[in-house]
Amino acid sequence: MENFTFYSPTFFAFGKNAEADTGKYVKRFGGSRVLIHYGGGSIVRSGLLDRVKASLEKEGIPFTELGGVKPNPRSGLVYEGIELCRKENVDFILAVGGGSTIDSSKAIAAGVPYDGDFWDFYQGKAIEKALPVGTVLTIAAAGSEGSPDSVITKEEGMFKRGTGSDLIRPKFSILNPELTQTLPAYQTAAGATDIMAHLYERYLTNSTEVEVTDRLIEALLLTMKYETPRVIANPDNYEARANIMWAGMMAHNNSCGVGRSQDWNSHDIEHELSALYDCAHGAGLAVTMPAVFKYVMNHNVMRFAQVAVRVWGCEMNFDHPEMTALEGIEAFKNFLKSIGMPVNFEELGAREEDIPKLVDVLCHGNGRNGTLSGFVTLNEEDCTKIYQMMVRG
Amino acid sequence: MENFTFYSPTFFAFGKNAEADTGKYVKRFGGSRVLIHYGGGSIVRSGLLDRVKASLEKEGIPFTELGGVKPNPRSGLVYEGIELCRKENVDFILAVGGGSTIDSSKAIAAGVPYDGDFWDFYQGKAIEKALPVGTVLTIAAAGSEGSPDSVITKEEGMFKRGTGSDLIRPKFSILNPELTQTLPAYQTAAGATDIMAHLYERYLTNSTEVEVTDRLIEALLLTMKYETPRVIANPDNYEARANIMWAGMMAHNNSCGVGRSQDWNSHDIEHELSALYDCAHGAGLAVTMPAVFKYVMNHNVMRFAQVAVRVWGCEMNFDHPEMTALEGIEAFKNFLKSIGMPVNFEELGAREEDIPKLVDVLCHGNGRNGTLSGFVTLNEEDCTKIYQMMVRG
Repeated sequence: MENFTFYSPTFFAFGKNAEADTGKYVKRFGGSRVLIHYGGGSIVRSGLLDRVKASLEKEGIPFTELGGVKPNPRSGLVYEGIELCRKENVDFILAVGGGSTIDSSKAIAAGVPYDGDFWDFYQGKAIEKALPVGTVLTIAAAGSEGSPDSVITKEEGMFKRGTGSDLIRPKFSILNPELTQTLPAYQTAAGATDIMAHLYERYLTNSTEVEVTDRLIEALLLTMKYETPRVIANPDNYEARANIMWAGMMAHNNSCGVGRSQDWNSHDIEHELSALYDCAHGAGLAVTMPAVFKYVMNHNVMRFAQVAVRVWGCEMNFDHPEMTALEGIEAFKNFLKSIGMPVNFEELGAREEDIPKLVDVLCHGNGRNGTLSGFVTLNEEDCTKIYQMMVRG
Repeated sequence: MENFTFYSPTFFAFGKNAEADTGKYVKRFGGSRVLIHYGGGSIVRSGLLDRVKASLEKEGIPFTELGGVKPNPRSGLVYEGIELCRKENVDFILAVGGGSTIDSSKAIAAGVPYDGDFWDFYQGKAIEKALPVGTVLTIAAAGSEGSPDSVITKEEGMFKRGTGSDLIRPKFSILNPELTQTLPAYQTAAGATDIMAHLYERYLTNSTEVEVTDRLIEALLLTMKYETPRVIANPDNYEARANIMWAGMMAHNNSCGVGRSQDWNSHDIEHELSALYDCAHGAGLAVTMPAVFKYVMNHNVMRFAQVAVRVWGCEMNFDHPEMTALEGIEAFKNFLKSIGMPVNFEELGAREEDIPKLVDVLCHGNGRNGTLSGFVTLNEEDCTKIYQMMVRG
């Protein structure tokens, strides 16, 4: 195990009707003027936005609103949010939505007290100050409700980049599994795929002697393997949604990823797809991961064999561990297909002829130096081959 | 899953030489006059106490000291610590040691700003205010470094009772596995047993549909099953100690125990043993758990069968699941024996003739009403039978 520090000071309120206490938590964590930040019409139609507002009004907390966050959230709305917060003297950002809304809220929170361009933080500058953020989560996916991370797409160039800081970890997150019951099956499955990607990216490590975090990651993968088909078969299954919701938080707050190197190449390779085609991040990951895993498998066959045996129930082939490793990747791919995820470029809406452009932005865009580091360092040629593998899946 | 709230705002610094930053963390979390609280001579002899003091001096933080914490920490020293802190205007308690030292520190932290007797908090009164606590951990066992809990023994009557509050969760905890390498094998094994007890007590639930936390608990049990024998065989195995140390924290900060009812009857039954015989808490648990588990097994055979299959590698007996359940309990008992733990009263230093006294204090002492609630509600007769089962093990 490597040395590390870990700090996850988010307060979680989990369960039915938990959002009724939103105002109470805003007050507890120091908010006195709130920006409610959200996406589209679903939280308006469902009445969630009204319930959240009522909860703030009950505590006498004034608020202003900014809707319109899109999946793969854009820099334009972040700039707008920063201006609005300054104008209205907002001191607390309340995200009501999924990962995109939360990430956009984190960007606004870091941008308000900063003199320069908030995009600096997405190009490597450390965040030094941020407004507090709270969340009411509506989809189990990104894990942003308990993580220090935020990913934003800059409209000029369509660069999709991330930042991270304990300063933008939410002060509180409200997790009510009921709020996810109205999600369409495709979005539910894409969210589940994102959660599993967060686990695989941590699993693909070059650190050794990491049994405790290996086992914890496997525990969460096993949970997703069991619960996801249950919720696809029955969207109203509160219990399955509850298990997935906690797994999604645990998958990404990093308590299961400490003390080990991590990957994140699948995420980077996918980010260019969702930036260009505006596909669901989880759907893009479903096409990306099996290709990446097959491409890098020989770097450490035993790692892939271990997850194949412990999570996917494969028999260990002691003569040919690479067969077991491959079987585990196939099992994962079949699982993703079974929950309705795309498995190739066509199903995702991506085009083979765009590969040179994808590779160029991936390897050189926004200050990158031609390679991706992670479990295996990938150059342009590697990335081209990986995208090519994804064409037919 | 049941509704819950979860809040674990402790900052963890993990790894080699992490204690060198103690002063920095005290400052970060608002300490300006420190009480260093510790146990016996080992941290003096090893030079750890001097290193911690040097780190405080480097930051210009004045401190006073109170040593002498014993295993199963006593109320007498807590009263002394409270007086000392008031006299010296201490505003931060730094525990250097194991669970006993940390628990004693938490009691002092709650007692200083309270007008009444600190013991009130161990009799059900809620803590409303406490000084901040930081820890430098020297044994992986109690999980007190990341938990809201504290257990103290009141000398009048030798009652051993616990309290819990987010206000006494440590602000920071320094976890350096090297500091545990000098521990004798018996203490190492007793610590490991305590960690496994924290997992089993959470596993024995009456809640249903708790796959995510079941899997996480099993992950940590599997880690302990793998790593503990490695560290008993080779006390200098840093990596095994590191895995155990993080597992010990995760076992008890409750991220793996949320949303489900828990047991804690084994802990209560054991507490009377360590209070009366001053044995190691973990050693007492090694004798207690197999007896309790066999006694309550029929309440939910499938729960015990599940842990037998998933953790202990037993074959599921589909005709007679109770055989699998029992096999899992025996496997756990044999495991405890293999790491050098006692398995009966004699090996623990307990006496059969004391059983009536043990049961009386357990069921009626310090305001108890005659029964223990948990996975199964136990009355005096049940507790007598369980202690009797422990005589021969």
